[in-house]
Amino acid sequence: MIDLYTAATPNGHKISIALEEMAIPYHLINIDLLGGEQKQESFIKMNPNGRIPVIVDSDNGMTLFESGAILIYLAEKSGLFYGNDDAEKYQILQWLMFQKSGLGPMMGQANVFHRYFPERIEPVIDRYQNEVKRLLTIIDSQLENQDYLVGDFSIADISTWPWAKTHAWSGVDIEDLPNLKKWIDRIYARPASLKGSKLPPRGTEEQVVKGGQSIIQK
Amino acid sequence: MIDLYTAATPNGHKISIALEEMAIPYHLINIDLLGGEQKQESFIKMNPNGRIPVIVDSDNGMTLFESGAILIYLAEKSGLFYGNDDAEKYQILQWLMFQKSGLGPMMGQANVFHRYFPERIEPVIDRYQNEVKRLLTIIDSQLENQDYLVGDFSIADISTWPWAKTHAWSGVDIEDLPNLKKWIDRIYARPASLKGSKLPPRGTEEQVVKGGQSIIQK
Repeated sequence: MIDLYTAATPNGHKISIALEEMAIPYHLINIDLLGGEQKQESFIKMNPNGRIPVIVDSDNGMTLFESGAILIYLAEKSGLFYGNDDAEKYQILQWLMFQKSGLGPMMGQANVFHRYFPERIEPVIDRYQNEVKRLLTIIDSQLENQDYLVGDFSIADISTWPWAKTHAWSGVDIEDLPNLKKWIDRIYARPASLKGSKLPPRGTEEQVVKGGQSIIQK
Repeated sequence: MIDLYTAATPNGHKISIALEEMAIPYHLINIDLLGGEQKQESFIKMNPNGRIPVIVDSDNGMTLFESGAILIYLAEKSGLFYGNDDAEKYQILQWLMFQKSGLGPMMGQANVFHRYFPERIEPVIDRYQNEVKRLLTIIDSQLENQDYLVGDFSIADISTWPWAKTHAWSGVDIEDLPNLKKWIDRIYARPASLKGSKLPPRGTEEQVVKGGQSIIQK
């Protein structure tokens, strides 16, 4: 059984989507980010970076943080969503890394300066929104004439979709990126991805949900 | 034979270090970043993101971009620096991802605002320098009582070292991080890492160097 320590953020959603798509049984433990639970000692012991998601796999006792590492671990554990051969696998890894080092950090910075920073600094907001648009445009080109980033649905899509679909929160428009728009809708139409993208339910931290394969604690 | 398209940057050095440490034969093609060679059509065909490093492996015809994906590819190709078992492998992957999604992007932003941005905006510089210091402090803690990030020297170290050692360029002091300092020196003492970290030689774009296992073109 896998314990998933997570919250309703793009990086958290990657793992609930992966677990739902892979039909791996798990417990979901909802971490109260606003309350700072991820900075408490019990959490820091699992991830010194104080960030969700973290998994603990009771099959082998492994604790693992960093969503990209967890996605690869789960893909190799399940034998799913990591390509049909080595050539596809490394292309999937390449696009997963593009999300990890590019789209995710840049959307994160766009959000900080567009939404949260105490001061509104236009040239900094522009920098990050322009960079996000540039990266989303590259993804749009990659999706020309294909349904998913590499071959069939893969952990590259799982890594990228939870970020890309929040473009409006970063203040970035994608009306001129039709392949990206269709791909976002295509993954919304996958029941397991849709379910994973709504876990944990917002505003229900005290609720215990039992059903399907997930149990939400806290 | 591997063709490595690179330049004298931390992300480029990851791959020249890996190839030197793994003793994999390669051609090094020095890309003129200041001249914008990485944005030219022939390069964009290899990496639509217009960034170094890129490799082309003539053994199987694979073109691969994103330094993290290339490191994993080379580790699996060589059977080196990726742990002694699965447990170590996933921990290595976790720390590699920590560099890719955290230390690299945040040092990159610190450099932009500390060195290059047209306007000097202190709260933004502070944000990134503080975040870099926080991340380097986590690495320092991880290196308490151990020589490398996970077990023996691995691609987690190869991914992290070329960035961490440039802390001064980001305006971040590490005098209070003794484990980190010793680890930086420990890897400098590895001849292959040292050699890889000096490739391509700066300011010698026109020079052709033949020797050892690397041939530098352009």
